Amino acid sequence: MPPFDVPEGDPFGPHNLPYGVFSLAGSDHRSVGVRLGDHVLDAGAAAVELGSPYATLLARTSLNPLLAAGRTAWSDVRRALTAWVTVPAHRESVAPLLHPLSEVTLHLPFEVADYVDFYASENHARNVGRIFRPDAEDSLTPNWKHLPIGYHGRAGTVVVSGTDVVRPAGQRKAPADPAPVFGPSVRLDIEAEVGFVVGTPSAMGTPVPLGDFRDHVFGLCLLNDWSARDLQAWEYVPLGPFLGKSFATSVSAWITPLDALEDARVAPPTRTHPLLPYLDDTSEDPGGYDLRISVAVNGHVVSAPPFSTMYWTAAQQLAHLTVNGASLRTGDLYGSGTVSGASDGERGSLLELTWNGRDTLELPDGKRTFLEDGDVVTLTAWAPGPDGTRVGLGEVTGRIAPGA
Amino acid sequence: MPPFDVPEGDPFGPHNLPYGVFSLAGSDHRSVGVRLGDHVLDAGAAAVELGSPYATLLARTSLNPLLAAGRTAWSDVRRALTAWVTVPAHRESVAPLLHPLSEVTLHLPFEVADYVDFYASENHARNVGRIFRPDAEDSLTPNWKHLPIGYHGRAGTVVVSGTDVVRPAGQRKAPADPAPVFGPSVRLDIEAEVGFVVGTPSAMGTPVPLGDFRDHVFGLCLLNDWSARDLQAWEYVPLGPFLGKSFATSVSAWITPLDALEDARVAPPTRTHPLLPYLDDTSEDPGGYDLRISVAVNGHVVSAPPFSTMYWTAAQQLAHLTVNGASLRTGDLYGSGTVSGASDGERGSLLELTWNGRDTLELPDGKRTFLEDGDVVTLTAWAPGPDGTRVGLGEVTGRIAPGA
Repeated sequence: MPPFDVPEGDPFGPHNLPYGVFSLAGSDHRSVGVRLGDHVLDAGAAAVELGSPYATLLARTSLNPLLAAGRTAWSDVRRALTAWVTVPAHRESVAPLLHPLSEVTLHLPFEVADYVDFYASENHARNVGRIFRPDAEDSLTPNWKHLPIGYHGRAGTVVVSGTDVVRPAGQRKAPADPAPVFGPSVRLDIEAEVGFVVGTPSAMGTPVPLGDFRDHVFGLCLLNDWSARDLQAWEYVPLGPFLGKSFATSVSAWITPLDALEDARVAPPTRTHPLLPYLDDTSEDPGGYDLRISVAVNGHVVSAPPFSTMYWTAAQQLAHLTVNGASLRTGDLYGSGTVSGASDGERGSLLELTWNGRDTLELPDGKRTFLEDGDVVTLTAWAPGPDGTRVGLGEVTGRIAPGA
Repeated sequence: MPPFDVPEGDPFGPHNLPYGVFSLAGSDHRSVGVRLGDHVLDAGAAAVELGSPYATLLARTSLNPLLAAGRTAWSDVRRALTAWVTVPAHRESVAPLLHPLSEVTLHLPFEVADYVDFYASENHARNVGRIFRPDAEDSLTPNWKHLPIGYHGRAGTVVVSGTDVVRPAGQRKAPADPAPVFGPSVRLDIEAEVGFVVGTPSAMGTPVPLGDFRDHVFGLCLLNDWSARDLQAWEYVPLGPFLGKSFATSVSAWITPLDALEDARVAPPTRTHPLLPYLDDTSEDPGGYDLRISVAVNGHVVSAPPFSTMYWTAAQQLAHLTVNGASLRTGDLYGSGTVSGASDGERGSLLELTWNGRDTLELPDGKRTFLEDGDVVTLTAWAPGPDGTRVGLGEVTGRIAPGA
């Protein structure tokens, strides 16, 4: 059955159907939308129009009610939506509720509860180790292969794709400087990541085992963990990143449900160290995802990080995050950590691409070490879908605005 | 004018009036309450009964609407409440709305947005440095005197006083161990802190200067930043504390408005290093608070940390937190960091009190290095009030429940 006006091979065809929240020009009203090609279906209005029982989840102003509804509801709603956009009998009802993407404003699609960021790419962690601790015996810290290292970030500054990022000010001090100086960051960087969105909450004191990952995590998005390397370097010992990260984290406007990524599941890299039972996924379904990310600066592709290379999976990260009894809330978001592949052209940060400014990136509009005011960074990605299709992830983009 | 039935000298007299949220036995309904002696005034019901315009802020189920109303409203509401509990003409209306504390359940009084924890006691930081880096030239890291070090914690596991704390499980590895082991923490600790509650939000990209602290921060509470030292030691390099802290953070049920603590304001310790302008408070009003904290384990006082010794003030912490453009939301909470005085009996953690388990604490029920299952830890505090009175802070208490 052909979908409504979506070209064959479109990565946002009816096999994808990511969720977002949009408003129409001249209106403050926010609606849950589902992307179909270069249109947005007003999913709430469609549910009402078609007398669907899922109107209570879709005719809302954020994705949180759907996220909280749990895995069975997620599958049921997805099945219903698929029918609405593919079954010809629905066409007359649904067509007027499809709005061109160019005519809508996209909003942060859910209320972020807690935001955690991990550090799960071995390539990235080794690059960072080699850059900052060149004399160390091992480029990884001793704990790295035993647990997915993570830390909490600032939930209140998670912004939707398209939001300008103001260059942050702060303290920096090079080792040779006599005292710290204050000013706008001079080493503003990106981190290309994938974000995972928690739907079903969990109770305090109750860890979420590896096998329950898909009962709790609704879907994923692209995430740019903007980083001020100079602020971070001066502040982060001993309690970790703070102002070097907390000024902004951008997420794509579209949340791709895990149900759309069944064909993208792959085994993670072979583990080199034995894992404690709560992290041992050797008898679990494949925990990796084959997402092909692309990083562009001002429209020029500078890197192609492969998510399939991540050492720690999202299921392991969730198991670790909760093993101490920490509870989950609907809207919790966790980032994978910078995605970097093994080769030079697969690195997910300028820190690595320019080896902390030693090298330069050649862009059509000039050389870069770190970001300049006005630069626009855009992450896109796709994953293998059913029957040779591609599943597109919504882009995450942001422009650097000058600091005060 | 004598207050209603509160004994002379009661630290919760009408000069104090902290805010909380309570429910009555057999009811799920939550109400904003104000503590008066050993009673709780149903502030929302009183506002309705007295036809007050502040019913819109008080007849609510959390403090968030009041927090969001801003400094002028905070002062106006406090003035009205003071009249309601002191002016005899109101007695007939108000008396039936006073419930004995023993008959109410106290709830988390506000919805926590982001939670940040600082590290502002020089004594604490030096003790930690001496314990963990005994060979270091300086017990402080190079950045410590230049910025208030902080990190984000888990907002979703902030719990109200009285909530049991389940002993967390996790990985630990002593340097000599060949591999990490998994199990319940064997070094469960407390951190005696003061928490600051943000009311008025701020916009992204707009730092909050030192002088605007009281426009944004509504009040303070006692806070116990429970810490699993063995988990923390293994995980925290390089990105800071994560599971060692995220299982629970307890706050007192009562938020003391800053307006009740005018007489407790004191100058912070003399700064030994010049400060960058955004942190330089030499021409500001005194930024310290003279809060006398007491730490009791199973009813036995083990320490008396003096908050007046904190090197960094709450105003400096807020200025630092936002100087990179990070926005504030109503309900943001930030902890001062462990409060430790200069003397042995003033240390705010068992880590320091037992010098990481080298020494023991003698309790009537036996010796302690770290916490045992069933132990109850209670923080209390008072501050100088007007005319020689004391302003009591609500206690924060928690019992250690065995882990799974």
